[in-house]
Amino acid sequence: MTVAETATWLKERDNFLILTHRRPDGDTVGCAGALSKGLREAGKNAYVLYNPEITPRYGQFVEEHWAPGGYVHEHVVIVDAASHDLFPKNAEMFKGDIALSIDHHPSNTLYAENTCLDASASSCGEIIYEVLMALSGHISPGSAECLYAAVSTDTGCFAFANTTANTLRVASLLIEAGAPHRMLNKTLFRTKKRSRITIESMINSGLEYHFDGAVAIASITRDMIAEANADEDDLDDIAALPGAVEGVLAGITVREITGTSDCKVSVRTMPSVNANAICSRFGGGGHSMAGGFMIGKTVPEVKAALIEVLKEFF
Amino acid sequence: MTVAETATWLKERDNFLILTHRRPDGDTVGCAGALSKGLREAGKNAYVLYNPEITPRYGQFVEEHWAPGGYVHEHVVIVDAASHDLFPKNAEMFKGDIALSIDHHPSNTLYAENTCLDASASSCGEIIYEVLMALSGHISPGSAECLYAAVSTDTGCFAFANTTANTLRVASLLIEAGAPHRMLNKTLFRTKKRSRITIESMINSGLEYHFDGAVAIASITRDMIAEANADEDDLDDIAALPGAVEGVLAGITVREITGTSDCKVSVRTMPSVNANAICSRFGGGGHSMAGGFMIGKTVPEVKAALIEVLKEFF
Repeated sequence: MTVAETATWLKERDNFLILTHRRPDGDTVGCAGALSKGLREAGKNAYVLYNPEITPRYGQFVEEHWAPGGYVHEHVVIVDAASHDLFPKNAEMFKGDIALSIDHHPSNTLYAENTCLDASASSCGEIIYEVLMALSGHISPGSAECLYAAVSTDTGCFAFANTTANTLRVASLLIEAGAPHRMLNKTLFRTKKRSRITIESMINSGLEYHFDGAVAIASITRDMIAEANADEDDLDDIAALPGAVEGVLAGITVREITGTSDCKVSVRTMPSVNANAICSRFGGGGHSMAGGFMIGKTVPEVKAALIEVLKEFF
Repeated sequence: MTVAETATWLKERDNFLILTHRRPDGDTVGCAGALSKGLREAGKNAYVLYNPEITPRYGQFVEEHWAPGGYVHEHVVIVDAASHDLFPKNAEMFKGDIALSIDHHPSNTLYAENTCLDASASSCGEIIYEVLMALSGHISPGSAECLYAAVSTDTGCFAFANTTANTLRVASLLIEAGAPHRMLNKTLFRTKKRSRITIESMINSGLEYHFDGAVAIASITRDMIAEANADEDDLDDIAALPGAVEGVLAGITVREITGTSDCKVSVRTMPSVNANAICSRFGGGGHSMAGGFMIGKTVPEVKAALIEVLKEFF
């Protein structure tokens, strides 16, 4: 469905239940909050299904809209979820019952009865902005706040390669609509937890360079995580660290997984190096610039094995 | 002068020499490059005066426009410079001869014959964008590249508090005009030199917290700088590090100055704490949220003195 058709579809219906995806990020949560607010402002009943994996960082954008026990919905809508694999545990019962999926992932499996998909959008937030404008002609400050969080987090505050002219145009209009961008930028992008800063410093000071600096390998041991008092939130997107060093074409992160003797390896590359090709040598996979695999070796063993394979690439 | 008057003034003249400010940043350099390109595209002669402090990071935006020996100019224009104090050494001879100053600093001393000032602009780049549009009705990809660098660096990739809806609107239009924003974002914001990462890790792992985490103090010694092989470029905006920790209301950086027994202290605060009031207790000064002072003590002595004074604030 087009954006206009999606707005009309929503206008003609009522009593919505909105779902977010597993490991909820700013985009799915911000979109759910904004859509729920926008639908209520248009006179509808709308709630968001509680997501058991919600973190405090993003909970603020949606928690007032969690569906109470006994809420009787008519139509289930999901935002920013490409496939059934991304449904949270407590949403699995709705897999066969999704009336509308609004998404920006080109890999969307079209599992819903109706799909509003724009693969050129940086974030689902960009699409929800257009849907709400088509629905009511304006965006409230509350919806603008949620959508600014969605768009800005999915683009790393407009620095990631998915940012387009339209992303910045929408963000500009969201600020005009009342999004508190100064507060959000400070909280989301210019503040780090002490534990995050500690683990980052430990990782960065242990970076190892190979092949004239074209490869940087980061190690994350269980001991480091314990010493930094870091949780999963602190390790979010940690695989981007080694690739941020000037001159590095392949940034590799080797992490000990708690409770096992396995390591998880993440590979991020520049366009000239195929991450998927590297990972497939270890039975893993991914995209051209990001991939990963699990391996039953110690950190030093993994590093040695990686360097052997990387000789073919550098 | 308004933007329209400035464009008319430029249209009616020719043979421009454009100046940048001391310790040139992305805004002054990007503006000079964009203005020189835009004036040439409008059929004028324009060059930029060489800035002896230019760094490779920003040199790329202007180096093809450095004025050759013997260039005879008629009109001197300076961009992003609030006062005579900001003139580079080799531009001091032009202090009494500035025909036009284009600037966004509210503190501009109106030292020029004509001044185009917009203190609401995040960056001088936002103003130059409007001037070039008024001059010729379009922006070339080359000028757009320079202006994107200007606007994005002065706003920390749109994350700083000076970012407005208009900043994002202009950035969006610059991308449409051909600014290679993906490459620029990767180079300017998503890549760090090895030496910068090393010095950052050293500083962050040595952060000291006081007053229940409301104050974070960073130390930068000469030995640390030497060990990290860090230069001035690597220490750019380093004073922002301690203030980036969650819960910190005052982030303080104490740095040993090479070749002296002095320390330079930078204080960055949240709105609830007055940085200027803290610094003035040590004979320094600044704004409400950023200040500094020089002090003839060792790092441990400075820290002890700071904590004594901070007891009055926390």
